Amino acid sequence: MKISDKVESMQFSPIRRFNPMGFKAEADGKKVYHLNIGQPDVETPSVFMDAIREYDKKVIAYAESGGINDLRDAVVDYFKGYDIDFGRDDIMVTTGGSEALNMTFLTILNEGDEVLIAEPFYTNYHTFITAAGGKVVPITTKAEEGYHYAKRDQIEACITPKTKAIVCINPGNPTGTVLTLDEMKLIGEIAKEHDLWIIADEVYREFVYDDRKLASFGMLPEFADRVVIIDSVSKRYSACGARIGFAISKNQDFCQGLMKIAQGRLCVSTVDQVGSAALFRLPKSYYDEVKAEYNGRRDVVYEELMKIPGVVCQKPGGAFYLTAKLPVDDVEDFLVFLLTEFEDNGETVMFAPAAGFYATPGLGKDEMRIAYVLNKEDMRRGTELIKLGIEAYNKKLGK
Amino acid sequence: MKISDKVESMQFSPIRRFNPMGFKAEADGKKVYHLNIGQPDVETPSVFMDAIREYDKKVIAYAESGGINDLRDAVVDYFKGYDIDFGRDDIMVTTGGSEALNMTFLTILNEGDEVLIAEPFYTNYHTFITAAGGKVVPITTKAEEGYHYAKRDQIEACITPKTKAIVCINPGNPTGTVLTLDEMKLIGEIAKEHDLWIIADEVYREFVYDDRKLASFGMLPEFADRVVIIDSVSKRYSACGARIGFAISKNQDFCQGLMKIAQGRLCVSTVDQVGSAALFRLPKSYYDEVKAEYNGRRDVVYEELMKIPGVVCQKPGGAFYLTAKLPVDDVEDFLVFLLTEFEDNGETVMFAPAAGFYATPGLGKDEMRIAYVLNKEDMRRGTELIKLGIEAYNKKLGK
Repeated sequence: MKISDKVESMQFSPIRRFNPMGFKAEADGKKVYHLNIGQPDVETPSVFMDAIREYDKKVIAYAESGGINDLRDAVVDYFKGYDIDFGRDDIMVTTGGSEALNMTFLTILNEGDEVLIAEPFYTNYHTFITAAGGKVVPITTKAEEGYHYAKRDQIEACITPKTKAIVCINPGNPTGTVLTLDEMKLIGEIAKEHDLWIIADEVYREFVYDDRKLASFGMLPEFADRVVIIDSVSKRYSACGARIGFAISKNQDFCQGLMKIAQGRLCVSTVDQVGSAALFRLPKSYYDEVKAEYNGRRDVVYEELMKIPGVVCQKPGGAFYLTAKLPVDDVEDFLVFLLTEFEDNGETVMFAPAAGFYATPGLGKDEMRIAYVLNKEDMRRGTELIKLGIEAYNKKLGK
Repeated sequence: MKISDKVESMQFSPIRRFNPMGFKAEADGKKVYHLNIGQPDVETPSVFMDAIREYDKKVIAYAESGGINDLRDAVVDYFKGYDIDFGRDDIMVTTGGSEALNMTFLTILNEGDEVLIAEPFYTNYHTFITAAGGKVVPITTKAEEGYHYAKRDQIEACITPKTKAIVCINPGNPTGTVLTLDEMKLIGEIAKEHDLWIIADEVYREFVYDDRKLASFGMLPEFADRVVIIDSVSKRYSACGARIGFAISKNQDFCQGLMKIAQGRLCVSTVDQVGSAALFRLPKSYYDEVKAEYNGRRDVVYEELMKIPGVVCQKPGGAFYLTAKLPVDDVEDFLVFLLTEFEDNGETVMFAPAAGFYATPGLGKDEMRIAYVLNKEDMRRGTELIKLGIEAYNKKLGK
């Protein structure tokens, strides 16, 4: 029995691929600092489970395919808080941001259509675009330039007659790079000139640091007809296991197409929607607190990383990721070393090798992604373990 | 901005398409008996919400992509109760049976591959197969023959070099038709001879009536390598809003392919999984009670339907659906009449027109599907309203 060519061509998640080795290290008694996956240790606000515990319907019934109204209205209000105007019908509730992406690409792509996306990028885009019959075309960025890609020349050089959409993960995963509103306008203009959809993945919207202002493609009504915003409760509310996401657009043809797929899969978890409506009604002060926490973690990680000779990295402006070039030839081999040979006082560390975040073969071999999702003390120790690991690894290799 | 050809070719759910007209009738003060959608009024067992209420982790974190072990183990034990042997790794937890179908077709189909399925069939198969690039090839069945399709000649006449799989929804939605284990063996042999996958959608497994025995493709180890079982908590436990389903197979290539997609979408709702594990641990007596209830409802509906001159329908053997030919030329037009013109003591009724369940254009125009998901009294009254409606409708048309 043969499986399909599409699925044959997909990869296992590079973020989860080294998990078995990590579990083995833990089973052997080592403490492993998990900087490899975007699973925050921040507590999920208690309103989520409180709302679910109070849910007292006797039948856990199908919800409406587009989502329950209470949640959609809470999202409308949330956007109003940023002067972004969406109506209930512009908002499709999905099973995580993942399903929003899956359904979005299925709705816009024909077989062979190309999708532009700055590399390194959140690796699962490859899965969703491939599943929809499309092809990823990477806009290659560099550690030395802070992984910036909002440059007309660079973007236009990647556009062909088959290009259908440009993806902006902003703030960026895995780079932490942030677009300004002016840069969004530039991308909007390019998209308009070449008739492209803009897929704006803004699940880290609140997490922008230093003097950066929160910005969204939803703030640019002139491009509204070609913009699809992807959103999720996972990161903002530290609720990754509540599989609630959104595809949001003012383009009615798009929303209608999306609804056909949505009806096919019936609906999204009722209790997760009930809990998520409560999350979107949290006061704005919640975001300030969480943002301050991640900001502090970023500062610690960056400070510690800069102590390692040969590391190349600009201070990232948002999300809770950082990608850096390490002074080793093969980061995957280095990670295996960390998990199977290295230890310092019984402790070691995991990160995600960045090669899996590149579509261009051979790129990113000397880069890693860190998710700064643990408390400051753990982040400091985790980064220190990378430093000690590099010294031991290069010594072993005779460098 | 254009949307994709695939999504353009998909239909809106024929089950949900008449909802706005139903809502309007209700807003106008009519009582509408909803026999149109498979949303049971049976209470969800309280263990579901009890288990969720007791969940006390502070972070609602990502689950493992294949599902939490406690749920997978509960499913293994459930199957053991029927002498069906599956291991934890054979079971992929999905977001409802819907995602199980979506991921399964993506894993087995190449562009243009054909999938056999007896029509009328659960309409969302069209969406999932189209999304994966495949094509539905219907095996046409008839009301007069109780919609049976387990016939070698009939099946083989539909097989071409492009045929990749045969779908068996058993017990059947929308027909209520049930395969015997011998008929499953026949289909297994045909599948083996022509090297086809068997997609066995068994979400109504327990709901078989009269002297029929519960049967499953999982009971036929000789075909295990080509069988994928689709399962769900929705119907068995009256928990449609708990989006928990399963794709289950002993074929390791299939399971590995499925895992690539599963990792791409990260995981399934944590709280729904916690609640569902408790559902699968219910004693077997639970199924007996629910089955007895549906059996009684079926008897009522069938008895009432047989009072309508000109109705063609064999007594269905399972699930909680019944499809019948009505003595009207155009069932959709009749439904519009019921919702906009007809009433009896301020009451009317909704069903699903069966044309949407056929892939062959023009078929099923005089057929309807009833879901017997309401209590006996409501089912009796709902079916009576169909009878009264037909009399009024044909009188209006001068017949």
